[in-house]
Amino acid sequence: MAKGNLFVVTAPSGAGKTTLVAALLAADQNVQLSVSFTTRAARPGEVDGKDYHFVSREVFEQMIHNGDFLEHAEVYGNYYGTSQTWINTAIDTGRDILLEIDWQGAAQVRRLFPEAIGLFILPPSVEILEQRLKNRGKDSDEVIERRMRVAKEEISHVEEFDYVIVNEHIDEAVRDIVSAVRAERLKLHRQSTRHQTLISSLKA
Amino acid sequence: MAKGNLFVVTAPSGAGKTTLVAALLAADQNVQLSVSFTTRAARPGEVDGKDYHFVSREVFEQMIHNGDFLEHAEVYGNYYGTSQTWINTAIDTGRDILLEIDWQGAAQVRRLFPEAIGLFILPPSVEILEQRLKNRGKDSDEVIERRMRVAKEEISHVEEFDYVIVNEHIDEAVRDIVSAVRAERLKLHRQSTRHQTLISSLKA
Repeated sequence: MAKGNLFVVTAPSGAGKTTLVAALLAADQNVQLSVSFTTRAARPGEVDGKDYHFVSREVFEQMIHNGDFLEHAEVYGNYYGTSQTWINTAIDTGRDILLEIDWQGAAQVRRLFPEAIGLFILPPSVEILEQRLKNRGKDSDEVIERRMRVAKEEISHVEEFDYVIVNEHIDEAVRDIVSAVRAERLKLHRQSTRHQTLISSLKA
Repeated sequence: MAKGNLFVVTAPSGAGKTTLVAALLAADQNVQLSVSFTTRAARPGEVDGKDYHFVSREVFEQMIHNGDFLEHAEVYGNYYGTSQTWINTAIDTGRDILLEIDWQGAAQVRRLFPEAIGLFILPPSVEILEQRLKNRGKDSDEVIERRMRVAKEEISHVEEFDYVIVNEHIDEAVRDIVSAVRAERLKLHRQSTRHQTLISSLKA
């Protein structure tokens, strides 16, 4: 049995996901972001295997064909995807892997990886959500309305997740996400794998 | 649905349960120990409703008859028990209640209160367990051996619990128990109850 966990983090934009995930990664050395596969060209400074796994269209399509992707999508003519093999290898070493993904990607992951743990981040109120979406720049009302619709669509899937974090006070929300990740490691099935020898010797 | 959680904490003696629970209670104002009912007389300084609920033998036996106890036991001629009614009232207010109990009590609680969350604390090795049991005083080998047998009997029930904490480094173990309690509050079913209005308004 794998020793690490796969976490899926989903949120409407404006919920503060990026900040929370960055704080989690800083606080917990055992969690790392999933490294996606992509067919787009590496940008200056991007490192293969760290920022992305850069592969050709042929390789990517072969991986699709082999059923290797937990989820994948084509965006502006480039493929992006999360390799099941890569995730499995990573969590087998005991590390926890975190995927930042929308509700549709999360649903795909759940189908192929039912033991994935879903975390959903909510803004503390409709007003604050609207305000955060407005603060992003000088956008037309129409653009902001569309963003609100997309955010609400995302939020309508909150019940598909295991943990819900309301990001009202950032310090509290950081403690929440850090606690959820830490607690999942303490679950019986995880600890039974990790401390098999200890438990056997203590029962003997 | 109740807003708070019921936690059951079990450990062999020598695992450091008392220290861990004290640290949890100090760190988290939302958790409190369950207040047991007892038929024994209050000792000087003990406060009714705080240390125990002190009741007569007749009242206690009536409560047994009514099926009010999640678990109860008679020790040296006095009854001790955990009232289901009391727990339900306490968690309905949103507080988390913690029960320190042995594996048999935990099994009784689980039968009547399946949503109780079980935490089991393990010592980091057989050697350390033995050492901790010896350090309690100048006991005969026979007494220590009996303690080890009781401890191992307790540990043989670890698989009945939801979370397992290995108390190797006290600071880490404190963070573990605090995280497990905090994370349980973030579970979907808990947050759906607590943030019902928020979630409805965000989806609308």
